[in-house]
Formats: sequence, C-alpha cells, structure tokens
Amino acid sequence: MRKNFGAKTYLYPLPVLIVAAYDENGTPNAMNAAWGGISDDNQVALCLSAGHKTTKNILAKGAFTVSMADAAHVVECDYLGVVSGNKEPNKLAKAGLHAVKSEFVDAPVIEELPMTLECKLIKVTQEGLILGEIVNVSADESILDNSGKIDPAKLRPITFDPVNNKYIQLGEVVGNAFRDGLKIK
Amino acid sequence: MRKNFGAKTYLYPLPVLIVAAYDENGTPNAMNAAWGGISDDNQVALCLSAGHKTTKNILAKGAFTVSMADAAHVVECDYLGVVSGNKEPNKLAKAGLHAVKSEFVDAPVIEELPMTLECKLIKVTQEGLILGEIVNVSADESILDNSGKIDPAKLRPITFDPVNNKYIQLGEVVGNAFRDGLKIK
Repeated sequence: MRKNFGAKTYLYPLPVLIVAAYDENGTPNAMNAAWGGISDDNQVALCLSAGHKTTKNILAKGAFTVSMADAAHVVECDYLGVVSGNKEPNKLAKAGLHAVKSEFVDAPVIEELPMTLECKLIKVTQEGLILGEIVNVSADESILDNSGKIDPAKLRPITFDPVNNKYIQLGEVVGNAFRDGLKIK
Repeated sequence: MRKNFGAKTYLYPLPVLIVAAYDENGTPNAMNAAWGGISDDNQVALCLSAGHKTTKNILAKGAFTVSMADAAHVVECDYLGVVSGNKEPNKLAKAGLHAVKSEFVDAPVIEELPMTLECKLIKVTQEGLILGEIVNVSADESILDNSGKIDPAKLRPITFDPVNNKYIQLGEVVGNAFRDGLKIK
C-alpha cells in the first residue's frame, strides 16, 4: 500500500550546494541551496530567490562558485543557510571560512570546502532559473585517491533530507553504473 | 593545494531518477537520469535528450513520474539506463518491474520502487529543460517511520558518482538543517 503526501518537494538525494559570489565591492558572500543540479553538459541550474544577497551578487558579477557541503563542515554550511547575507555582510568570516578568488572566474572559492565548481553565469531563464557554465572543477589534494581522482569517501559530501530536515552523508558503494544492468540485457 | 579538472559535470550528490511515462498506446517505459532535481516550489526539472523514448512519451502524454532508484534495485535501475526504449519496447517487463497507472496523472508508477513523484508536464523551456509540476508524492508503507513519514534509512536511495561511475547509498545522519548553524549565529 502507498501513502499519498500531496504536492511536496521531496526528492532523494537533494544536494547541499554552497553558492558563493562577490558583491560589487569584492566582498564574498555565500548561501546554502538544495534546489539545483546539473542541467546540461557542463551546466548547472540553481533555483535561488531574487531577494538573496548571493543572487544579486551573481547578477552583478556574472560568475559564481558551487562548493559541495561536506560532513566536516556541517555547522558552517548550515549557518550559511540560516543567516541572510543582506543582514550579516560578514557571513563567511563569522563562519570561520576563508575565500580566495578563483583562477578562472570572478568569484570566490571557499578554501575550507574541498570541491568546487567554478561557473560563469549563462543567463537567468524566463522561469527564473540561474544557469551557469562550469568552467572548471577544482578539488583539494586531500580528497583525491591514489590515481588523482576525486574520492567521495574522502570528500564526504552531505545531502539534505527534505522530509526530516536532516543532513545525511553518503555511505557505501552498492553498484557499478553502466555495468550492473548489463546482467539483465 | 587544489587540482583543476577542467569543465566537468561533477557534482555530489547527483540523484538517480527513474523517469517513467506511457506512450500513445499506453505502454509504459522508463529511463535513468542523473541530470535533474527540484527547480522551484513543487516543481522538478529534467535534462533529457530529445531522442529518448521517455522524452517522446512525456511530450505525447503531458505527464510522467520520477521514482527514486534504491539500493534494493540497483541492477534493475542501471538496466533502465543502459538499454534504450527505442530498441527494447518491453524494458520494464524485462527488468522484472511492474507499472500501475498513477491515481493523479496519466503516467505509470513502478510498483517495486517505493517512492514516486507524480508530475504533470508544465513545459519544455527554451533551453530544453523539461519542467514538471509535482502533483503528488507517494511512498510505500514499508519505507515509513512510526509517525508515518518517509524514512530515508528504509528507502535507501542511491546516488550516482560521476567521477567513478558508481552508485553510492546514503549513510549516517550527520546534522540538523536550519538548526546546527544557529550555534554560530
């Protein structure tokens, strides 16, 4: 038997994206967003309300970064979601986070978060989605495996549970994409 | 030190969405998609190439469902991604999956996958994104907790690792959203 919950924005897994941009004076700000993801080849889509300080900054600068929230920085990443950059201009510093300018776009890379997508604003769609071109993905050496690839077991990305308002980290590998299904074929 | 990977569609976590729709004869089909997510209040966005059988079906019927791939059905869900519905019209049956019509929209609910978003097509955007209105979320009683809410530890949703082509299940709860950050505030 199934239970119906009505119209809800329930989805598993939802990401915890830390979206960062500079304002016109070069002050970095960042927010926490679960409504977004990959929307095409080398493209991200974000649903951010127009009132956010970060939204204004993205439009002003035409660039932003998207870092993965990780288990090591749950408190800091949640803080970026509960406090508005319109009221607290020093959010990053207050969270103990540090920003350096991306080598590729005019946007801040948060040093403490070890994996970051560096993006140029493509456009805001008619429907209000912010589309960004992924120009570069950077990752700290501490989260790479022996062959130099990103290792999610070291990154420890978190996901947002929209039903219970929890953060959940990734667990065990349970299968091989583009391979396990060939058993049926 | 950070390593640069260039323009890649790396993001953690990416979902494993099983998107299902009927064709004009009422035959259900389904595919596996990692490029999609919540795009607004009660709205999903999917990036599906026009050539997919499921894309044609969504446009023909104006409705679709999005089920969460889970650890109990890794092989079946991967199969839906490696075989084209244009070549194998009987994909669902071949995977041992069964479809019943949604109570809310003209689209198939896959009985074996315990959590499903039932959606009406809103539009295809200028950029080619498929936007759907979430009309209902349904979940099998087997994945509910004692208070009747969806329990992700019972659902065991999987995520797609785009760097290593693995499926990873969710693990431990590591924080409380909208609460842990208040310690800094």
